[in-house]
Amino acid sequence: MPGKRQIRPERPVYPTPAALITTMDEAAGRPNIISLGEVFNISISDPVILGIAVRKERWSHRLISQTREFVVNLPTCRLAAQVWTCGSCSGRDTDKFARTGLTPLPATRVRPPLIAECPVNIECRVTAIQEVGDHDLFLGEALVEHVDEAALDADGRIRVDRLDGFALMCGQFRAFGRRL
Amino acid sequence: MPGKRQIRPERPVYPTPAALITTMDEAAGRPNIISLGEVFNISISDPVILGIAVRKERWSHRLISQTREFVVNLPTCRLAAQVWTCGSCSGRDTDKFARTGLTPLPATRVRPPLIAECPVNIECRVTAIQEVGDHDLFLGEALVEHVDEAALDADGRIRVDRLDGFALMCGQFRAFGRRL
Repeated sequence: MPGKRQIRPERPVYPTPAALITTMDEAAGRPNIISLGEVFNISISDPVILGIAVRKERWSHRLISQTREFVVNLPTCRLAAQVWTCGSCSGRDTDKFARTGLTPLPATRVRPPLIAECPVNIECRVTAIQEVGDHDLFLGEALVEHVDEAALDADGRIRVDRLDGFALMCGQFRAFGRRL
Repeated sequence: MPGKRQIRPERPVYPTPAALITTMDEAAGRPNIISLGEVFNISISDPVILGIAVRKERWSHRLISQTREFVVNLPTCRLAAQVWTCGSCSGRDTDKFARTGLTPLPATRVRPPLIAECPVNIECRVTAIQEVGDHDLFLGEALVEHVDEAALDADGRIRVDRLDGFALMCGQFRAFGRRL
């Protein structure tokens, strides 16, 4: 049995989703995007409630608190550079759709847009906000999910091998690998 | 731009960790294991607070509620069959360590054991329990993390390429893939 060493935990759970969260800046009249690894399924089906954890000082924290709406967009490997960019500048002074070239599409139930290039988009309405240590946890009911036709099989189920997705793993972006 | 279809969301966020959560059944005098994809980093560093979502009817829900302690163990691809087994039977009537052949190691701060074969083990103490739709969300402070020496580099940092981990993706087990 290999020996173990004790380390101080920091963001210890892996992998986490590499998600782009869209929000609406109503004062500026434009949408914003934040890259986030802290995106979770909490209530699975009845109702579907997601969680996202956002630091208080982030611009998106303010926007989500104001509108109580967000969209979770799950990117492909081809969007890795844009995911990096959206995590490296602030919507306070940057139009991230303009900066990244990503395409906003109108959502159906909320004001923040979908990102057209992401194969999966989940429209959410905030049901609760609570402080959890150094982040605030936003709970959001998933109202509707949009999936690229090309990522669905004939029965309308998502085909994982067509998502071309990636994850955050201890600070790295990693593509999805072989099926076990 | 590809066309999109609206679907009813169900556990829509991917990937999620494939985690083995250990608990202690004090009445039976034995530890238990549950396979869980709903395991999250919420507060990242000060303090480190994880979340796990567990249905009320699960045996582990009762055990964690009683002891207010759990350990998050992150498995390797070689443990995929054991992860499946731990998700397919109940600790009410099964000794899952005996069933899977996994090896319990004493933890340092909590009663549930570490799983020796998992390269990462995180000891947690529950700080809050709350109902979120069809699951209960347990918040747990991460007290200490144990990592296999073989998975650490010379500076004591985790090497992702040595974890041999996997994730849950839309019902499938998927190995970690290439670095982007």
